[in-house]
Amino acid sequence: MTMAYSLLDRKTSVISLGASDLDKGIESAKAPLVRLQWQPVGDGNPDVAWSLAQIVGDKDDPEAFGSLVDRANEEALQRILTAQPVWVDVVLHASEVWPDMGRTLLHAGPPIAWDDMCGPMRGGVIGAILYEKWADTQEAAEKLAGSGAIRFAPCHEFGAVGPMSGIISPSMPLFVVENKTGGTFGYAPMMESGGAKTLRFGAFAPEVIAGLKWIENVLAPALKTAVAGIEGGLPLKQIMGQALHMGDDVHNRNTAATLLLLRAVMESLLGSNTPKDIVQDVVKIVGADDMFFLSLSMAACKSTMDAAHGVPHSSIVTAMARNGVNVGIRVSGLGGSWFVGKADVPVGLFLPGFSEADANPDIGDSAITETSGLGAFAMAAAPAMVQFVGGTPQDALRYSREMAFITVGRNPGFTLPALDFIGAPVGIDVRKVVDEGMRPVINTATAHKEAGKGIIGAGIVKAPMKCFTEAVQALADGAAKS
Amino acid sequence: MTMAYSLLDRKTSVISLGASDLDKGIESAKAPLVRLQWQPVGDGNPDVAWSLAQIVGDKDDPEAFGSLVDRANEEALQRILTAQPVWVDVVLHASEVWPDMGRTLLHAGPPIAWDDMCGPMRGGVIGAILYEKWADTQEAAEKLAGSGAIRFAPCHEFGAVGPMSGIISPSMPLFVVENKTGGTFGYAPMMESGGAKTLRFGAFAPEVIAGLKWIENVLAPALKTAVAGIEGGLPLKQIMGQALHMGDDVHNRNTAATLLLLRAVMESLLGSNTPKDIVQDVVKIVGADDMFFLSLSMAACKSTMDAAHGVPHSSIVTAMARNGVNVGIRVSGLGGSWFVGKADVPVGLFLPGFSEADANPDIGDSAITETSGLGAFAMAAAPAMVQFVGGTPQDALRYSREMAFITVGRNPGFTLPALDFIGAPVGIDVRKVVDEGMRPVINTATAHKEAGKGIIGAGIVKAPMKCFTEAVQALADGAAKS
Repeated sequence: MTMAYSLLDRKTSVISLGASDLDKGIESAKAPLVRLQWQPVGDGNPDVAWSLAQIVGDKDDPEAFGSLVDRANEEALQRILTAQPVWVDVVLHASEVWPDMGRTLLHAGPPIAWDDMCGPMRGGVIGAILYEKWADTQEAAEKLAGSGAIRFAPCHEFGAVGPMSGIISPSMPLFVVENKTGGTFGYAPMMESGGAKTLRFGAFAPEVIAGLKWIENVLAPALKTAVAGIEGGLPLKQIMGQALHMGDDVHNRNTAATLLLLRAVMESLLGSNTPKDIVQDVVKIVGADDMFFLSLSMAACKSTMDAAHGVPHSSIVTAMARNGVNVGIRVSGLGGSWFVGKADVPVGLFLPGFSEADANPDIGDSAITETSGLGAFAMAAAPAMVQFVGGTPQDALRYSREMAFITVGRNPGFTLPALDFIGAPVGIDVRKVVDEGMRPVINTATAHKEAGKGIIGAGIVKAPMKCFTEAVQALADGAAKS
Repeated sequence: MTMAYSLLDRKTSVISLGASDLDKGIESAKAPLVRLQWQPVGDGNPDVAWSLAQIVGDKDDPEAFGSLVDRANEEALQRILTAQPVWVDVVLHASEVWPDMGRTLLHAGPPIAWDDMCGPMRGGVIGAILYEKWADTQEAAEKLAGSGAIRFAPCHEFGAVGPMSGIISPSMPLFVVENKTGGTFGYAPMMESGGAKTLRFGAFAPEVIAGLKWIENVLAPALKTAVAGIEGGLPLKQIMGQALHMGDDVHNRNTAATLLLLRAVMESLLGSNTPKDIVQDVVKIVGADDMFFLSLSMAACKSTMDAAHGVPHSSIVTAMARNGVNVGIRVSGLGGSWFVGKADVPVGLFLPGFSEADANPDIGDSAITETSGLGAFAMAAAPAMVQFVGGTPQDALRYSREMAFITVGRNPGFTLPALDFIGAPVGIDVRKVVDEGMRPVINTATAHKEAGKGIIGAGIVKAPMKCFTEAVQALADGAAKS
């Protein structure tokens, strides 16, 4: 006791680190207290820390497994940086791309069964079944979905990406983006207009189905004509880079990119035989939807990251996707495996009348933009977006700075004016995520958790650490076998 | 000597202020030296300082002349903040607006005679004479211009604004912008395509004249149709505010604003009877010129600032314009007087093959944007622009912060995301400019000093202090008489 009193007499200041409860007394005594944000490497799991130690690079030992990973990542990074995604075509029906599709419905995120799907994804499935006329009522559609007669598969496993519920059915038209250097393709469905009442948010009312039919019968053929009229296709990397200089992150803000796209589409369509009233409809619909470009951004990113996939030993994340229940990642050197963790609810702003209690956990394939070093990774370019996702312009700068800690390079094609034109951080290394204890940040729209209620806000969310710790362990398992 | 030595023995550190030559010895001795940037109030002129003292506000004395000025500025500021500039029409010929124009040519900046004009303005005059067919050779045009048969007058005195040489002749079409709250109008000529080879930069080759004829015969009628099809006209304040969130300063960068304009024009034109090939030409030309919106931005600012002009005793600058030789300002409470000083050469970046030696001093009416709190005053919104005008993104933030010292308010309609969405500083007070010794910053394109050689770069320039000291003296003269 005497000793303790003499300690306190000396005006003790405390730095607290790790076990947080032990400092409660100091806090209540109002002594100067700094709590360091720290936790042990490997998310507090010694096995993960041990796995990580097996696969970190060693500059002095080029033969070490970790050095092999470093070199593999360098190769994967080069494939990302040299990618040249070009919008080359529109297919009028997904089944043209995958003739054996049958009654397959593609969905966002890692694999999931009908019984496990969240509300908005179930709504999207019901809508797609009605749209395909495989059933003609909600009840019949639900019954069919649960009967086993429908095959469900992730978009990502088909070279595709879908926003929010991400449902792609055989009759849906798709954007086709070709990565000219990688020889890879990315496919994405066209953005529906109509705001909240869209299939991607799980709505399936008759007007939603009618909207999809208009896309299939009017918009898609017009855009097919438009892109056919652009010699060599429309280079998307340039548009995306320019949009970053115009306040977009090309994930949750696509205002500039959509206008740049519209200009190119208009020029081409006006030189085609497309009737003037159709051109007018396209301007009206595309021009009214500031997010229209997102599909092309996602397909461009998918074609980019698929080129970086399959580099043996690489620890670079090539897909990060959410099905509204789980987040899954795929890693370049780990084949087709998904590493999965529970999806969080985005933190951000809500439309009037909604709150966090209404929010579905994180959903959609659009995090392929973050995987490519865009979206939240490039948010320093998009300060005005905080009015949509919450936070301050300083947060936007911070996200772009922080993500450099968990990535392997910077993209000179995607520069950030507010950070002195430094390239956006790119190439998430699962080792760095685990080592830094820092999860990738994602900008996202927030869906209502019930089917068909649509968008209720937007915010920021982070991918769960479990995806990355398990990927690290899988890489270490590979190291042990090699 | 002994004393001096003992001073130096003590490691003298020096703060130098004012007379800069006296510290040369300290500098050469490499002693610690800080040179404070300071000069006496009133640009070093005691008469100006005395004049300023007569017209500064006094919170304790609402009857003081300066307090009268403060209240007048509050009124002028309200007129600026409540302005609602709307693009309402295109007149196919300037002579429809001013039927008594005859052989008048309007030009940028304060009044100037033919003999005193700089190269690019002379080139613009020659081009306009050829365009009007008042002469058919360069030599004949020059002779006519010098004969006294042509009347020259500032655009600003006709409610108009012209970029660079700013020449407006009777046959030229003009944008018409109406400030719906102020009841004022702003007129501006349409931006020519063709880059360097344009009348505004003093070019007058046959293709320049042909370009102007195309504007008169094709573009202007199409745009007249377009705006007629937009119910109530096109509100410009909203577009300008949105463009600030998309990396424009709406003076030297209009990329986003031009795309937003193009979208509105396309929607309207496609709903009109305009033939498809004309619509296609409009998209091609307007779409290819990222600066096309500047004319509308300038006309919007002119209609805004003219509403704030003529408030008795107000010390707010309502026009700041350059004729390539002199800069002139007009002040709300000082009637039609111009206060003039010698124009500086912009400091910035040059196109390959050109240098400062080729540059014409500051020219054009486009500083009406800075006068309205846009351009360099809103440059925090446009970090990517430093690639065009030079400097760093930090400079862009600094200009917007510094201009708050010489303005009377902030515009909530023009917010700056990177500065936490604070309103752009607006309403230059000649008293504050003189008191702070801080000249207004202007973003500008740089013209070749010889006629017809076009744009050679872009940069930053400041209005000369003499304009502001003379305006302060004129206000003080008024105070003495009141």
